Amino acid sequence: MKAEVHGDALGTIQVDSSAGAYPVIVGAGLLGRLHEVIEAYAPAQRLALITDDRVGPLHGEGVASACRAVGHDVTYLTFPDGEASKTRKSWSILTDEMLEAGLGRDCVVVAVGGGVVTDLAGFVAATYLRGVPVVQVPTSYLGMIDASVGGKTGVDVRSGKNLVGAFHSPAAVLADTDVLGTLPAVERGQGLVEAFKHGAILDEDYFVHLEEETVALLQATPGVAAQCVLESVRIKARVVAEDEFEHGYRQVLNFGHTIGHAIEAASGYALGHGSAVALGMLAEAAIGEISGVTEAGTRDRIEVAIAPLLEGVDIDVDPEAALRFITTDKKARKGRPRYVLLSRLGEIARGDVWTHDVPDAVASAAMTRVLAAR
Amino acid sequence: MKAEVHGDALGTIQVDSSAGAYPVIVGAGLLGRLHEVIEAYAPAQRLALITDDRVGPLHGEGVASACRAVGHDVTYLTFPDGEASKTRKSWSILTDEMLEAGLGRDCVVVAVGGGVVTDLAGFVAATYLRGVPVVQVPTSYLGMIDASVGGKTGVDVRSGKNLVGAFHSPAAVLADTDVLGTLPAVERGQGLVEAFKHGAILDEDYFVHLEEETVALLQATPGVAAQCVLESVRIKARVVAEDEFEHGYRQVLNFGHTIGHAIEAASGYALGHGSAVALGMLAEAAIGEISGVTEAGTRDRIEVAIAPLLEGVDIDVDPEAALRFITTDKKARKGRPRYVLLSRLGEIARGDVWTHDVPDAVASAAMTRVLAAR
Repeated sequence: MKAEVHGDALGTIQVDSSAGAYPVIVGAGLLGRLHEVIEAYAPAQRLALITDDRVGPLHGEGVASACRAVGHDVTYLTFPDGEASKTRKSWSILTDEMLEAGLGRDCVVVAVGGGVVTDLAGFVAATYLRGVPVVQVPTSYLGMIDASVGGKTGVDVRSGKNLVGAFHSPAAVLADTDVLGTLPAVERGQGLVEAFKHGAILDEDYFVHLEEETVALLQATPGVAAQCVLESVRIKARVVAEDEFEHGYRQVLNFGHTIGHAIEAASGYALGHGSAVALGMLAEAAIGEISGVTEAGTRDRIEVAIAPLLEGVDIDVDPEAALRFITTDKKARKGRPRYVLLSRLGEIARGDVWTHDVPDAVASAAMTRVLAAR
Repeated sequence: MKAEVHGDALGTIQVDSSAGAYPVIVGAGLLGRLHEVIEAYAPAQRLALITDDRVGPLHGEGVASACRAVGHDVTYLTFPDGEASKTRKSWSILTDEMLEAGLGRDCVVVAVGGGVVTDLAGFVAATYLRGVPVVQVPTSYLGMIDASVGGKTGVDVRSGKNLVGAFHSPAAVLADTDVLGTLPAVERGQGLVEAFKHGAILDEDYFVHLEEETVALLQATPGVAAQCVLESVRIKARVVAEDEFEHGYRQVLNFGHTIGHAIEAASGYALGHGSAVALGMLAEAAIGEISGVTEAGTRDRIEVAIAPLLEGVDIDVDPEAALRFITTDKKARKGRPRYVLLSRLGEIARGDVWTHDVPDAVASAAMTRVLAAR
């Protein structure tokens, strides 16, 4: 059975985790074969299919019907589309609905949707009856490229995003690149930012390939999109295998995120995560150049490459406000802010540890430079 | 440092878990040395000390002062005593308070209290910033004998107890048997039921020892109490090491619990967990005898042994109502109810698996027999 699933997919990456290895299966037209993946990696008769009210009519309902047709008992659960749903309240409602449906420890959660769905449904699976398996079916670039690997699940709370959650590796991930065609265009760009990040930190050749294929990727051209997802999954899987719980090396994946999170927060979350990280990468490249850590010209190169991803995105963020988010943080949870810096494109600058301490004045100058240019 | 902590304790049991081994340190007068345990097994400057408003004034505040005296930054968090606090709402409040205090991933949760505190604080630790270490300091027999080993954490929800949670092994467990003196007498009996269960399922000699020492145990006589805690931890650790996530062998620990949970629920949770499990053990021994699986006279032997633990406990449960809880369950989550049965005292009767299917009529007859005798 496993061989069959693999045979038709474009490719499968095995991701190591403390809970056992799991496959990320990538290819076109895979959605109709989800039941084979469940049979091979998380055999169960009863499924809790969790999706949102945008993706549900597009893909969730079809998946549910296909699973019912082969004999699964499917409890179909949905919630309103959007980040505002990624809360403890939604999590409570979903677990209560599963309990009322009488689902036992032998059920499997199937998450069909973007990052909000996979993070929220993953946290439901992590905590339902102290943990049941989850099969992740990401339907966005971001979900396929980034959230599919690493087992991070969680919800947003008043104090910030993703602050409550669990590491819960999926039983399997199915990334059907055909569904990217149904993704709003602006979200495609948002998700691809993380792919460029993978190239920027660890693989210059991949970065160059993404640059060359940007138009095809934004159109979600099947073969090109699948190759990109596969390569990003391969890079991220390698990093996560070395440091699953983010005590050290996994932090390199946070390139662009220290400034990015601050910009996102300063925009009142009006700016998408991808756009904020794109600006964060530029600012952190600038920090590296000002500090003499990063090869001159790196920021310009990243800027040219990601410009098409930011097209049509309205960027109106006050650098002062963004800086306050970082300096407020430093009084508390995170201590001094830490930055992942490049030595050059495709290579991390490593000090004693994987992150750097940077004077606030340098961070401020870099952020102002990047935001003022908009 | 580790050697020092061990040296003064009566004994330490290492418990294996997928997240690494952890010690359960048992002895008298250990509470004042908590900071050494933290230093040895979960070094951190910032602590979130979670307790309830009954145990807090007795032990929590002293522990907090002692930790502050050696330089820890302690965030002291408390909630109302009792099972009614073991909710998602309490969990939300505690995590929000920790976020507002600015605690980062380098903090450690210290749980000081009975089963409600250790289960709830454990779930907080399991999900705070996707997981931080927890040092468990159980202050009840039940907490020391049962909840200290196995990493089960969680909360109660409308559909039932402990239905949402996580497996999250502690960094260390500190069981100071001196604190048992502050435990209400009725709770001592409740907790000791689980020790008798350990003897009943796996070690007849231990069962006999407990019978002989019942009076001293109910008075929490230091040496006797510590020996009992150590032996129960040893037995449970051996079981959990073989089957951490309760897919098979660990189910033997559920002896008395299928009927016990139903009796507890049928009483509207007015009856304590220990008393309900005690009655459950009698009923399941009766089931075994009726079915010809359990040696005749086993139920009588258990009944004589545990009678002192039930003294003063008001038992008024309708067998019909209890049976309905089992037959309702069977339509849904748990499938057919399964029973752990003894072959004789100190030995599990194993069929194809560790649990048995039993006709409802037999379960009904056994339950009626046990409850009618009260």
